[in-house]
Order: sequence, then C-alpha cells, then structure tokens
Amino acid sequence: EGVARLFSAEGEPLGVGYLEPKARAALRLYRFDLGPLDSAFFQGRIEAAARRRAGLGPHHRLIHAEADGFPGLVVDRFDRVLLVQVRTRGAWALKDRWLPALRSATGASAALLVPTEYARRAGLELKPRALWGEVPEHLVVEEDGIVFEIPLALAQTKGFYLDQRENRRLFEAEVRPGEAVLDVYSHVGGFALRAARKGARALAVDRDLAALGVLDRAAQKLGVRVDVRSGDAPAVLAALVAEGRRFHRIVLDPPALAKSPRDLPRAKRLFAELLGHAFRLLEPGGRVWVSSCSYYVKEADLLEAARRAGADARTRFRVVRITHQPEDHPWVAQVPETLYLKTLVLEPYPLAP
Amino acid sequence: EGVARLFSAEGEPLGVGYLEPKARAALRLYRFDLGPLDSAFFQGRIEAAARRRAGLGPHHRLIHAEADGFPGLVVDRFDRVLLVQVRTRGAWALKDRWLPALRSATGASAALLVPTEYARRAGLELKPRALWGEVPEHLVVEEDGIVFEIPLALAQTKGFYLDQRENRRLFEAEVRPGEAVLDVYSHVGGFALRAARKGARALAVDRDLAALGVLDRAAQKLGVRVDVRSGDAPAVLAALVAEGRRFHRIVLDPPALAKSPRDLPRAKRLFAELLGHAFRLLEPGGRVWVSSCSYYVKEADLLEAARRAGADARTRFRVVRITHQPEDHPWVAQVPETLYLKTLVLEPYPLAP
Repeated sequence: EGVARLFSAEGEPLGVGYLEPKARAALRLYRFDLGPLDSAFFQGRIEAAARRRAGLGPHHRLIHAEADGFPGLVVDRFDRVLLVQVRTRGAWALKDRWLPALRSATGASAALLVPTEYARRAGLELKPRALWGEVPEHLVVEEDGIVFEIPLALAQTKGFYLDQRENRRLFEAEVRPGEAVLDVYSHVGGFALRAARKGARALAVDRDLAALGVLDRAAQKLGVRVDVRSGDAPAVLAALVAEGRRFHRIVLDPPALAKSPRDLPRAKRLFAELLGHAFRLLEPGGRVWVSSCSYYVKEADLLEAARRAGADARTRFRVVRITHQPEDHPWVAQVPETLYLKTLVLEPYPLAP
Repeated sequence: EGVARLFSAEGEPLGVGYLEPKARAALRLYRFDLGPLDSAFFQGRIEAAARRRAGLGPHHRLIHAEADGFPGLVVDRFDRVLLVQVRTRGAWALKDRWLPALRSATGASAALLVPTEYARRAGLELKPRALWGEVPEHLVVEEDGIVFEIPLALAQTKGFYLDQRENRRLFEAEVRPGEAVLDVYSHVGGFALRAARKGARALAVDRDLAALGVLDRAAQKLGVRVDVRSGDAPAVLAALVAEGRRFHRIVLDPPALAKSPRDLPRAKRLFAELLGHAFRLLEPGGRVWVSSCSYYVKEADLLEAARRAGADARTRFRVVRITHQPEDHPWVAQVPETLYLKTLVLEPYPLAP
C-alpha cells in the first residue's frame, strides 16, 4: 500500500497513483505521467477546479473526486467554510501534501472533515473534526434569496444538497400560484420553500427533525408557510393516499438507496413503491419529479421502476425531461462513476377514451 | 389484413387494431377496448392531441403517432396548413374515417400528404398531394422572430424540423457575441441564424442548396449575416480542420443515420468521425451539441461514439446536458419507440498538468 507508478506490459509509463490492494479499485491514478504527487501538483489541480467554478457563487462543490483529477476527495465550499470528504485510504495518506494546498488555494477560514460511508468501507476510522480554523456552529447557505442555517451536527452528516440547485430552479419556474406541492425526502425543504414562494401550498415530508427545523426557520425568514410531516416516506405517502389528498407536483428525492450493486433490486422496489403512491396522489395534468443519487441506479432502472408503478396505477405517462447533476459536480464521460444524479420529470399522458 | 380484435389466451378483450401480417409490427392497436374505429373515435383522439398542444403556438407537431394513440400517423401543423405523414398500411386504409375528423377538428385550410421512407417500406406507393384545400407554394414558419419561407418542394421531403425548437432556444441563450459558431447539417439554419442574432460569426454547412436558400432569405429579413458552405459534412469538417479554423460552439445534427438496427454500426462510425473533427475544431472551453434523431441510435451509442472520438483526439470531456424531443413530440414511457431525439452537449474538460 502506498504511492505507485503504473507501466504498461510494454514498459510504457501510464501514471502515478495510490495502491490499495484490498479496495474495490486497487489503484487510483492521480496523474497520467510520472511526475511527483507533491504540494505544487495538488495546488495546481485545486486551482484548476476553482477556476472552473468561477461565476457559480459562494456555495458549490469545489472538487468532485476523479472528475477533477482527485480520486478520493470531495470538497463542498460554503463561502469561507469547506466540508471535506475523504473517501479513500490514498487521499487520507496524502493529506499532508494537499491539505496546505487546499487551504492556500481557497483562502477558506475553516474546513470540517466529514466522514462518510465510503471512508468507513475503506477502513478509515475518521471522526468529524476541524482540519483547520474554527468551524462556525451554523453553516449559512443562501440560494436565490432563501437562507438556510444548517446546524453543525446536520452539516457533519448530510450538509446541504448543492447538487439539486438547478433542479430546484427549474422546479420553481414551473410551479404556479395555488398549486398543491408535495416535497418528499425534503431535507431542509429546498423544493417546498421555492414552491411556497411562488404561492403554492407546500407540504414537506422528512424523517429528520433537525432538517425540518432548518426548513421552518427559512420559511419564517422568507415569510411563507410550509406544512411539514415527519415520518418515513412510504408510510406518509400511503397515509396521504388514504386521506384522498391530491397534489399538482410531487418531488421524490430519496437519499442514496444503493451503495453497491447488491442493493439495486431493493432500491428499484422502493422507487416503484414511491412512484406508485405518487401517481395516485397526482391531480390531472400534474407532474412527478423523481431523483436517484445512487451511481448504481441507472436512468434505465428508474424508468423501469416508473413503468412498473405506472402499470400498477394504470397510468400511462410521458417523460417531460431528464436532468443530471449541475456543472460543479461534473460528469466526465471518460469516468462513468462521476455520473450519479438522475432526475426524471414524469407526467401522466392518458389515452381517451 | 384489416381491422382486427385482440383477445388474450384467456379470452379477455385487449383491444382493436389493424393487422398487417408482413409488417415488422404485425398488429397496431388503436384502442384498448372493443369499441369502433369510426370518425367519432378518431375525432376524439385528434381533439385530445390538439388540447395538449394548447399554448405551443401555431407551429407544432399535432399528432405523434403511438404517443397520441394514433399508430401510423404523424401530423405537423404549420398554422393553417398540415403536413401529413402516413406510415402504415392501416393508417392509410382507415383514412376515410380520420381524414374528415382531422379536417373538422383542426379547421386547417389545407393538408399536404408527405410520403416517407416508412410508407415505402410498408408497400404504400404514395405521391405528395393535397388531401384537401389548396397548399400554398411556400410554408411560412415564424419561430421566435425568425421567418423561414419553405418552398413546397422542400416541405414535401424534409419540411421544417420542429423538434429542435427547444434546443435552438437553449443554444441561443448560451451563445455570446463575437463567438465563432459552426452549424453542421444546418438545413434552413435554425441554429446558425440564432447565433448570428446574438452577434456570433456563424457558418452553416449543408448539402441541400434549397435549404441554404431558405437560410439566406431568413438572414436577409433578419438583417444578419451567416456564411454558408454546401457539401458533405465529413468532408467539409475535414477541410475546416486542415484550414486551422476554430469554433466556440459546434452543432452536429445529421439526418436519421439508422433506419434499422443493421445501420447502427455505420451510424456510430459516422458520429465518431463527425465528433472527432468537432473536438479538433473547438476553441478551449467550447462546446459540441450533437443530436441523433434515429430511434435505433440510443443515448449510450452516442456517448460511446463521443468517447471514441475523444480518445482519438486525446480529449477528455464532460457531459453538460442531455435533452430529448420537446412536448409536442411526446416520449411516452410505455411506448419506447416514441423516443427518438437525443442531444448531448459536450465540453472538453482537460486535466492539468
């Protein structure tokens, strides 16, 4: 285990990476020549990533792992504070070389290490802690005029989902005054608050009371009202069906349901269940926005789950749009794993008679 | 051959359709009960299709075959004139029932029958002709302030590509003044003219002089300049590479390259060739918009062709966006064949060093 050079069978140099024999990907390449993995090299990579985010505002994903030539590292930037995910043993082992570079390239006043499931699977026992500076008690995120105050405890586990920013904008543009909008797995309510701002009656559903608390404070600041229900999404949706409720727009944005290929059948069943409820809850002409943020759940899987749900609910539907993650989470075509977020916008399209 | 009822092996009625034993799809269902295929039935289907297009303006696809419950029929509406494609023997055999309904439901003053390759394959020997009314010598299409005057001879074979409307809008929104823009397979120049209107230097490439003539008149009316080159796209692109030309945005929108699964390998090779040239012609930070309107060329095929071209041109790229056809060409998820148009927006995303 350690820094390794890779050569082809013919002896041609292919690159430099970090060897981790027991991992699913045993070697992660950082560069495609034989140069050093030193602070200057990492500083260059980080600066290039930052240049690419110019114009995106103070809150964005700064480093999207392999897409930015940085295996094992994900950095979300919230103005002067960074949330840092280390996902491989290699990225952790090399931290003395890239951490100072990250600090000087960004000028961030503080950085919080956020341990993830990836880190645990790689055998890294990390605890949340400041990598430098003093991390404030709340992360304050403003998005298009809505202010979210995320308590540190929430930021340490789930943060704020920057990757739905463009979808939230598209969604807000579609919502019309007076509509009923349901935001399932709402987290801090990014979709519901925008709907309420457009004059819709919004209901947000989430299990996490801390997230709903953030939503509530943001709604107060904004001067809008969003109803909330705390609970497990499938059960809440079933209850709403039983109550005879109807909505014009429904957002289904569950957390990653498949962390390995083995989880895929279960994930597809849950998507079909959620979508089945959603089709039954839709007003005529309404739309369902369904997202998967699991790399292993492909667009085709999501479509298949939707078709299954449509058959059960006897609903034929058209695909209005499919979107992917925004540009600060680049999908590099040569690294398929960099594509993880897919969103389908579906609209029942009945045949008459 | 003729109208047939379909029952399950258990004797349950499944629907009514048209049986054409020698066709690739031997039975096309028009309805999923045992009701009649009469004028009233077709009138209802056409009216439902028209209601769904409300608000889309005077030029749109009115009937998108199976997506609108109308196998074998495609109708594009240009204000008071319809272009009608009959694609199956069944739709032709039933014309006395739906043609009067189409006329009364739309109030169109004229309809032109446009024979297509589909019709020829179905053994229908159709000639272009007026189905009713007097078809004018030019089809006049206004799109977002640009006026295209399509001569009847062009309308009879290729018409006007309504399905790229949303992409043209997205494209125009992206173009910046002073950019160099290349519109390959430009047809009447929908992309090039919008680029020129934004202050870009636009070059349109097409083999069809009649289409370039339409472009030229539209440019004059608009008071903009678009350079044109007539010729086969791969050869023109190779020449532009040899000349050392560079462009900020390149549109590749070839006609359907695969009309059957057998054509797929050849289509992928041509896409890879076109994209290879395009990557070499791009300014740093530039983008390629590549479309396929063949049902048989899937998104994955297009991506694979792009990866191959990227490898040859030593270009790593990100997928900025993928779009599909707009809402008057509905993609109904239960009828996979209704999805045919895919557009990838690609941007080189190099690693430094």
